[in-house]
Amino acid sequence: MVPHLITTLTGPINELEQRILESMPAIERWFRLEWMEHTPPFYCAVSLRNAGFKLAPVDTDLFPTGFHHLTQAMQPLAVQAAMAAIEKICPEAKNLLLIPDPADRSAHYLLSLRWLMQTLHHAGLNVRLGSLDPAIKTPTAITLPDGTQLCLEPLKRLRGRLGLKNFDPCTIVLNCDLPGGVPAVLQGLHLQYLLPPLHAGWSVRSMVRHFQAYEEIAKKFAKLLGMDPWLIHSQHARCEQVDLERPAGVDAVRTQVDAVIGKVRRKYKEYAIRERPYAVLKADAAAGGRAVVTLHEAKELDEAALRAAVGPGRASLIVQEGVPSYERVNDTVAEPIVYMIDRYVVGGFYRTHAERGTDEVLNGPGTKYVPLAFAHGGDLPRLGDRHAASTPNRFYMYGVIGRLASVAASYELEATDPEAEAYA
Amino acid sequence: MVPHLITTLTGPINELEQRILESMPAIERWFRLEWMEHTPPFYCAVSLRNAGFKLAPVDTDLFPTGFHHLTQAMQPLAVQAAMAAIEKICPEAKNLLLIPDPADRSAHYLLSLRWLMQTLHHAGLNVRLGSLDPAIKTPTAITLPDGTQLCLEPLKRLRGRLGLKNFDPCTIVLNCDLPGGVPAVLQGLHLQYLLPPLHAGWSVRSMVRHFQAYEEIAKKFAKLLGMDPWLIHSQHARCEQVDLERPAGVDAVRTQVDAVIGKVRRKYKEYAIRERPYAVLKADAAAGGRAVVTLHEAKELDEAALRAAVGPGRASLIVQEGVPSYERVNDTVAEPIVYMIDRYVVGGFYRTHAERGTDEVLNGPGTKYVPLAFAHGGDLPRLGDRHAASTPNRFYMYGVIGRLASVAASYELEATDPEAEAYA
Repeated sequence: MVPHLITTLTGPINELEQRILESMPAIERWFRLEWMEHTPPFYCAVSLRNAGFKLAPVDTDLFPTGFHHLTQAMQPLAVQAAMAAIEKICPEAKNLLLIPDPADRSAHYLLSLRWLMQTLHHAGLNVRLGSLDPAIKTPTAITLPDGTQLCLEPLKRLRGRLGLKNFDPCTIVLNCDLPGGVPAVLQGLHLQYLLPPLHAGWSVRSMVRHFQAYEEIAKKFAKLLGMDPWLIHSQHARCEQVDLERPAGVDAVRTQVDAVIGKVRRKYKEYAIRERPYAVLKADAAAGGRAVVTLHEAKELDEAALRAAVGPGRASLIVQEGVPSYERVNDTVAEPIVYMIDRYVVGGFYRTHAERGTDEVLNGPGTKYVPLAFAHGGDLPRLGDRHAASTPNRFYMYGVIGRLASVAASYELEATDPEAEAYA
Repeated sequence: MVPHLITTLTGPINELEQRILESMPAIERWFRLEWMEHTPPFYCAVSLRNAGFKLAPVDTDLFPTGFHHLTQAMQPLAVQAAMAAIEKICPEAKNLLLIPDPADRSAHYLLSLRWLMQTLHHAGLNVRLGSLDPAIKTPTAITLPDGTQLCLEPLKRLRGRLGLKNFDPCTIVLNCDLPGGVPAVLQGLHLQYLLPPLHAGWSVRSMVRHFQAYEEIAKKFAKLLGMDPWLIHSQHARCEQVDLERPAGVDAVRTQVDAVIGKVRRKYKEYAIRERPYAVLKADAAAGGRAVVTLHEAKELDEAALRAAVGPGRASLIVQEGVPSYERVNDTVAEPIVYMIDRYVVGGFYRTHAERGTDEVLNGPGTKYVPLAFAHGGDLPRLGDRHAASTPNRFYMYGVIGRLASVAASYELEATDPEAEAYA
């Protein structure tokens, strides 16, 4: 049940894969040097799209919620990565407070939370759940589909510290992207490690800022490998605070869509790719799963659909090169998602959607997840093996691109760090 | 094919296992704090014996040669551990020189070497083999059983640095325990990282020093868990530079054997263990696999057998409490071996010997290895599970004891560090 590429345009990807495998020591060293200068996000999940002619990240989630889709075989790898992370952050740590998303009580989310709690427990921490939900006033058990329980406890703020009753954590891990801003209870915590930091929430993050950082990194990395950075990144443009209620605002968006599609068309011509280029439009501060508008031409832009997707009034948008996904799992369009803890790839899986096409977003109602083992039983890359025949080789390449996006997230978080600004 | 304990005396081990599982966060934190103060050996392999009533390490190999016995599923874990080690030692590293044992050209050894080279390559290094064998004057291919080849190259010393032709490594990894002393070509390398350090070789190491360090650590650890340290360490005594040619020398050995057996007898009485205590005698600077004399009483000591085992003339010996092995794999006596890279358990396997009894050493002609997956597919310990029924739980306990021996090796190497002495 290994996914396959349905496109015949696999030449550039095979060449890229070959170059990545041959350069493995140089690539790993490059990452080591990056991580000497920059702090990796505590965890992240990067969605990729493989078009056969290029491979690029399309979303970098700093609050991953799909840990339960990773195969069990990967958990020891995740435990080891968490051990390395904790050792670096706070070796004396005894207690860790995990703060889940108060808006999500789905069975899927609870399973992911449990996976994360288990991993952190095995890494050597007492882990408890503290809830941002004001309705949680006493320890509250919630039952998982298999009958086991998790306990949500009310948060307790004591001056500079956040904890639970009889539980003073040295580290707090957030698993909630704070789309509505930072709750007061999380503000001003200077005596504890809060991971990821508050400015990793969607009230501060900008997709454009992330992809600008990614582009910079992709260029450095492409130089190392002597290749065209476009093979691993997608073109993008920003529409800042456009007023979608006015024709001038919509025109500004159309201009950017045209510009991006034009750039992509030139690239397609350069690589003799006989595809129709397209662009996707998203809100700039869009958490994963938000609505996306796909356009093959600027004139297709439907104002009402756009307003429905990003909301009315003024909005900042990102126009991104559409990367079709030609990977298929069980005859369904699939996109790989790479999971990382600290600087380590700890696994991945495929997001599939039976009713969506190659140029469509796979997130949404009907999405399925195929827990394919990225780092499964000895599946280490082998240089001798040929491309599509070798799953481990493709997974190594996905891990590399995933880690590039995690370096980008690290640059992004440095740029938005409010404390760094204070010193600037 | 999970090993089972044939003894009915499993009470103490089950209790120990339970306590270890319950204390997982405290134990992991304890290791984190130890590794803040001490440097783990680059790699090590710890042989354990599980008697059902106690579990203790009997050998700590600082130059492991059985990597190929680990299952393939463990290799990603080993790669991650090696990445963490390299990042700490020398993040800028490009090249790593691996120095194999020049005396071993067995197919087994070559497979282990290849496993190690692959792991270090995947961790992001260019790895080449430099030979201490003076007969290797040009790059020499040696063929493995599967037809693949390894290339041994002559070492090249250029003033303070060691390398190969056109290969200047930043790190040199020794996979040879240097029983005959340190070759001139390895001396005075102050500009490169040499791992493990030269004083980890058997020309410097002492079993007694190792087990003294282990006893100290076992006591600290037992205090943390509120248990008797004897459950995880074996009694020992040293016979220093005894002259085995003279009756007085042999008598001195007998006295120590009596003393150790007497201590064990008292412990057996305390725990109502109806076993016959015994002691094992080994050369103090004995690399793994050397001859061992097993004695149930001092008067059994046969001078000729002892001289045959440790050599004639003056010798330093270790008298060690014998720990019977009541574990069986496929109806054969088995002992687990835990493999570590840096501070991480990366796997393990069982050493078995069809013709040996529970109180005998399993190393030697006829030894077999059963590559059981210590960290196999999601085999993380589960607190709810009961003892012998749960392999992952037992493996976690083995990993903890293995890591205690690796902490002991770290203390030992600090105590014998010639450069530390210069500052003392």
